[in-house]
Amino acid sequence: MDGVPVVPVPVPPAGPLNGVLVVDLTRVLAGPFCTMVLSDLGARIVKVEHPEGGDDSRAIGPFIDGRSAYFASVNRAKESIALDLRSADDRRVLDALLERADVLIENFRPGAMERLGYGWSSVHERWPRLIYAAVSGFGHTGPYADRPAYDMVVQGMGGVMSITGWPGGPPTRVGTSIGDITAGLFTAIGVNAALYDRATTGTGRFVDVGMLDCQVAILENAIARYCSTGHSPGPLGARHPSIAPFGAMTTADGYLIAAAGNDALFAAMCAVVGRPELATDARFVTNDARSAHVDVLQIELEAAFVTRSTDEWLAALAGAGVPCGPINDVARVLADPQVLARTMVVDIAGEDGSGPGARLRLAGNPIKISGFPDPAIRGPVPVLDAHRAVLLAELGLSD
Amino acid sequence: MDGVPVVPVPVPPAGPLNGVLVVDLTRVLAGPFCTMVLSDLGARIVKVEHPEGGDDSRAIGPFIDGRSAYFASVNRAKESIALDLRSADDRRVLDALLERADVLIENFRPGAMERLGYGWSSVHERWPRLIYAAVSGFGHTGPYADRPAYDMVVQGMGGVMSITGWPGGPPTRVGTSIGDITAGLFTAIGVNAALYDRATTGTGRFVDVGMLDCQVAILENAIARYCSTGHSPGPLGARHPSIAPFGAMTTADGYLIAAAGNDALFAAMCAVVGRPELATDARFVTNDARSAHVDVLQIELEAAFVTRSTDEWLAALAGAGVPCGPINDVARVLADPQVLARTMVVDIAGEDGSGPGARLRLAGNPIKISGFPDPAIRGPVPVLDAHRAVLLAELGLSD
Repeated sequence: MDGVPVVPVPVPPAGPLNGVLVVDLTRVLAGPFCTMVLSDLGARIVKVEHPEGGDDSRAIGPFIDGRSAYFASVNRAKESIALDLRSADDRRVLDALLERADVLIENFRPGAMERLGYGWSSVHERWPRLIYAAVSGFGHTGPYADRPAYDMVVQGMGGVMSITGWPGGPPTRVGTSIGDITAGLFTAIGVNAALYDRATTGTGRFVDVGMLDCQVAILENAIARYCSTGHSPGPLGARHPSIAPFGAMTTADGYLIAAAGNDALFAAMCAVVGRPELATDARFVTNDARSAHVDVLQIELEAAFVTRSTDEWLAALAGAGVPCGPINDVARVLADPQVLARTMVVDIAGEDGSGPGARLRLAGNPIKISGFPDPAIRGPVPVLDAHRAVLLAELGLSD
Repeated sequence: MDGVPVVPVPVPPAGPLNGVLVVDLTRVLAGPFCTMVLSDLGARIVKVEHPEGGDDSRAIGPFIDGRSAYFASVNRAKESIALDLRSADDRRVLDALLERADVLIENFRPGAMERLGYGWSSVHERWPRLIYAAVSGFGHTGPYADRPAYDMVVQGMGGVMSITGWPGGPPTRVGTSIGDITAGLFTAIGVNAALYDRATTGTGRFVDVGMLDCQVAILENAIARYCSTGHSPGPLGARHPSIAPFGAMTTADGYLIAAAGNDALFAAMCAVVGRPELATDARFVTNDARSAHVDVLQIELEAAFVTRSTDEWLAALAGAGVPCGPINDVARVLADPQVLARTMVVDIAGEDGSGPGARLRLAGNPIKISGFPDPAIRGPVPVLDAHRAVLLAELGLSD
């Protein structure tokens, strides 16, 4: 590809996955989120993209200085090479990569890799040590295996939308792409477990993760509530389904979150708001009783909370040891002293003409592991095919 | 403990973590969710609980036949032993367990384990191969490290509530405990990566995961949108922030989800609803254009969608290859043919007088790995201290 500058490959951060080479055929979000997590843990990620525009998300906004910040937010520190897997020359490059790789990750629809000659069974036959992870909408088995899916589709089908929002209100999406992200996380767990397994057995495994399955896995106590009552639970606004008081409270100038997970914390909360008698009220003496009278309890508590500001109440609740906090918007999150102290906001290194500019900041790595640094500057976001020259040289291939 | 029947320890399912022994000091959700994931992958989990009532969540509803279905939903197939870590005798038992263990997981507030003499540095000195994972509200460093937190607190502080719900509406919780669950998943990734690292280095690591950090990590493009515009994004109801059309549509009898992730899918959707001219309308020709005119696009599309039923439209959209689906409640999720075909609904084995009864069904394991079966019946839910006798015998200790 003419005009692409020759840039060196980024060095993965020190981490438990140093030495692990991942060939990443994924696009958009679930797969790239997974390989970003692996990259943050020290794996080397070679992103293989289609020559015509590359990863679809390069065309998804928001854009900063003409480059997709959406793409940048999950593809830092990866290497990029453009390969057309229907071309014999490019398949030779992929084969050379797979020869050296520890993990192949793809999120095509089931059957697509088989049609290209890179399905699990043929790949496993050629490279038996290679771990093969597939993230798809519905997984590689079952009646819906061939259907296309995106985050919104599995948020709807998997039940989380039926319990998010306000009673009687319109359907409400979880504000982040939880369908993709949880699939990416479960896939990262599977890949790591397969690497551990391979250290003993020497054999690669096929890790098959469906986004819909992951939505079922995070329904948590909603399934228990259905089994207990025989009725599907509905949305509950801003409160917890089986712990009370545990949710948003209206204050004089907005809202706060207060969460009394046990009787002692409830008593402490009642004392803070000047209503100590609530703690010994028969309707509220146990969590079960409070859950049964949650509406009247909310009214009693909010009658107190509306008399003072969020900041005043948070100071008083924190002083009494009651778990509490504000409802932060993104600007406040990125400026929060704890978030900054934990290096959860990072910058992108070395533009190489590739990054979306210094205005973009990204989320850091939430897995802090002793003995490894947690850099506040992460590898650059690659332009399409940025590392072709160095990768081909490394593989002993010519262009 | 008198009156507790002697029951055998459950056999972990075949999986990549077979042979891994996890000593699990966690309570309620983030930690137990993590160790359930490890158990599903084949690890053996010994749950150490406080003698006075055990895990707090044993007292959290819903209850079935008097036992907590909430507790059951994240503690299947684990062994239980009650230990008071302030008692010398019980510390001797914990030490014997840690002598054999590969992983220790705890979710106390930072400092609590140090006060008991089991902080990371002393544990690492005694058992250098032991991996030590800590899940806490804010992590073990930074100004908020000592503060208590629950799911709702980090949902509020971490920004996801600011982008979930409807514009101008009240704050809205994600319907599942995403603060706990994502922390459990990131911890599971860290533990697996540390196991892989240990296979080479022989040394255990300290894995420190804060729930707030994990909320920042899943904000995804909300951070990019803030960086792009300088304004914090707000809630968007049931649509995607930067892909259109991608969300809930009103039909004649309810709602459906339809997601056109690229121009070809948008054209297919327009053809299905009988509005092919929309695909060439200048306002809608690219995703960026559609996102800029998302409100008028929604009106145009819903004018068509309201004319027929959800089922009719889903059949037509699926036939045209447009990703789509219903908004399922929990009853429909648990009866969905794909969910069932993927063994994503499981039953609990061998009651041992311990389980919440046959009415309770649980979510299965979404990480499908070749060469390992995916059992539809999972190990029993332990009563408190159920495995004391067999564990002490195994450790060569007397009661």
